[in-house]
Amino acid sequence: MNGDASALPDGADGVRCIKPGVRALDAYSLDPDVASRKLDQNESPFDLPDHLKADLAAQFVSEAWNRYPAFVPRSLSARLADRHRWTPDGVLVGNGSNELIQAAFQTLVSPGDIVVTPSPTFSLYALLIGVAGGRHRPVPLEREWKYDEGAFLVAAKTAKVVVLCSPNNPTGSVCSHRLVEQIVAETDAFVIVDEAYQEFGGASMVPLLRLSSRLIVLRTFSKALGLAGLRCGYALAHPEVTAEVAKAKLPYNVNRFTLAAAGIALANLATMTSRVTEIVERRDRTATVLAEIPGVHVFPSQANFLLLRFETVSAQHVFQRLLQDFDILVRDVSGAPELTNCLRITIGTEDDMRATCQAIRTVVT
Amino acid sequence: MNGDASALPDGADGVRCIKPGVRALDAYSLDPDVASRKLDQNESPFDLPDHLKADLAAQFVSEAWNRYPAFVPRSLSARLADRHRWTPDGVLVGNGSNELIQAAFQTLVSPGDIVVTPSPTFSLYALLIGVAGGRHRPVPLEREWKYDEGAFLVAAKTAKVVVLCSPNNPTGSVCSHRLVEQIVAETDAFVIVDEAYQEFGGASMVPLLRLSSRLIVLRTFSKALGLAGLRCGYALAHPEVTAEVAKAKLPYNVNRFTLAAAGIALANLATMTSRVTEIVERRDRTATVLAEIPGVHVFPSQANFLLLRFETVSAQHVFQRLLQDFDILVRDVSGAPELTNCLRITIGTEDDMRATCQAIRTVVT
Repeated sequence: MNGDASALPDGADGVRCIKPGVRALDAYSLDPDVASRKLDQNESPFDLPDHLKADLAAQFVSEAWNRYPAFVPRSLSARLADRHRWTPDGVLVGNGSNELIQAAFQTLVSPGDIVVTPSPTFSLYALLIGVAGGRHRPVPLEREWKYDEGAFLVAAKTAKVVVLCSPNNPTGSVCSHRLVEQIVAETDAFVIVDEAYQEFGGASMVPLLRLSSRLIVLRTFSKALGLAGLRCGYALAHPEVTAEVAKAKLPYNVNRFTLAAAGIALANLATMTSRVTEIVERRDRTATVLAEIPGVHVFPSQANFLLLRFETVSAQHVFQRLLQDFDILVRDVSGAPELTNCLRITIGTEDDMRATCQAIRTVVT
Repeated sequence: MNGDASALPDGADGVRCIKPGVRALDAYSLDPDVASRKLDQNESPFDLPDHLKADLAAQFVSEAWNRYPAFVPRSLSARLADRHRWTPDGVLVGNGSNELIQAAFQTLVSPGDIVVTPSPTFSLYALLIGVAGGRHRPVPLEREWKYDEGAFLVAAKTAKVVVLCSPNNPTGSVCSHRLVEQIVAETDAFVIVDEAYQEFGGASMVPLLRLSSRLIVLRTFSKALGLAGLRCGYALAHPEVTAEVAKAKLPYNVNRFTLAAAGIALANLATMTSRVTEIVERRDRTATVLAEIPGVHVFPSQANFLLLRFETVSAQHVFQRLLQDFDILVRDVSGAPELTNCLRITIGTEDDMRATCQAIRTVVT
């Protein structure tokens, strides 16, 4: 800035205009730690193959960057509908699935409405519920983080919206078709299922879209499809519901490059699927190796990450040692009350996992 | 879809859960007309120079697309702060400035709060005010679409937020520093100034950020900087205010490619600026030519578009003739009550403007 900070006016004057509910929220944040082995964001270790990147770059140079992307990305919606055996007008493409979570809350949640989520779960839900003015009702997961179906059903009876994340972040546990079926049959709640990790395990709820229009299923290109850097997610729902949620989604929300890249990823789904198999096998092997280390509890996971609890040393200690002595960055989730002494570790390359198991063994024993 | 439409459940069940205020809103939409001369979205006629596109494509192929973009795009924020002589922590980068309008409304507007805008103006404001549950108070612009400062000041006294668009879309008229200064000095309203077209004319309100923290200025790469296809906008505000608005902005909202492209555009601002000069001169020449056609009123514009009113034929007729007989697509804005018989025409290439003036003369006379 030209001029010093004393040239700024009183910030409190502007902040006073912010909704009290928003002021009370903690911002979503992530420590900017850097390491050679990056296992903190549940990214895929696989980039798009070089020849596909080159094809896409060539295609993109020939596009007109000064022109807005399509108002409705019809060809991408059609491909996605085809993938999930759903109708194209029931597909909404977003700038990451986060945008569609936000749009769903903005259209469904009025101030004071109760929104149920699992606990622990992805922390962004609580933030976006808060921005929408909703009342957050976390429902604790059971032993080994199983969904407590009875507790969810009871909570759903007074809820406007129930958010389920399956596999759940950061626990890796999944919920059943039966839970969603019961909620829509026995309550008036609207169900949002976040399936960001579904390719790695658990049943997709997409078939249940044929049972009830009180359901939105969210999917992403950021995890199994390996395109976190490009930001693309989508919602599947009844066409009359997507038409309403679309009102809170911004026009031209997905840029030209991302639309093109998502199309290429879908056209090469076989490559993507074989990678998922590889990650799932590696996850299960890694879980077995880690579980043999005394003092390390490995929770069962159907996602591309493992949640560990340390019984003899603190999670913060392990986190710091991994980062400083072994150049491995994992996610310290131990700040959440239920996650005392827990770390979340993304399944990376074979070499990443070997190094991480070895490092944890060294730190813990 | 596999299976026929009769396999869908009752949509009304899901739609009943949508907030009534959202159900009552019309979605933002745009007719998907296509023409060789595209003068309907106020895009720049200039793409990024080929060598810069090639540089960027090469850079991008070498990036890891499977990795999330930076949590905070520090180098882009620093460049933007430098451009506007503001502080980097007072810059918020978004997926187009629309995302930041939305985030500002979500953090400032509680249900029932009054939000003032000019009328006519960019239709997205009304939609996003509606989603946030605000009460929209349009303040009519004066003769030749001048901002009626007295009327705005009166309206601001009961408003939570005042949105000013300068130059205003679709009128091209600008507001003064004095109006913003008076609103922050004499009322409790928070002011959002959308400067999407500011490079083409009128004063930027950025210097007023040093007077009051009750001000957000929105800017975009989509117009003068010619990057509509990549979706990038930003907000400038007091750092304490941007910290609050950031809570409603999604993490990783701008993808890797867009961040890189925005950086390249800023590094080549001289090229961009010379193009602005060219468009401004062309706009003024085009206005002069069109004003000489009997039955065509050209409103004064400081943006990269002209608003015309037809006095002898209907705007719809002119719109259709331009599209069907001359392959020219302009924006029919005549649906808004104040804009009866008006069309908005983006300033394109010299050839576009010659063809458009000629076509309008043919249609009108």
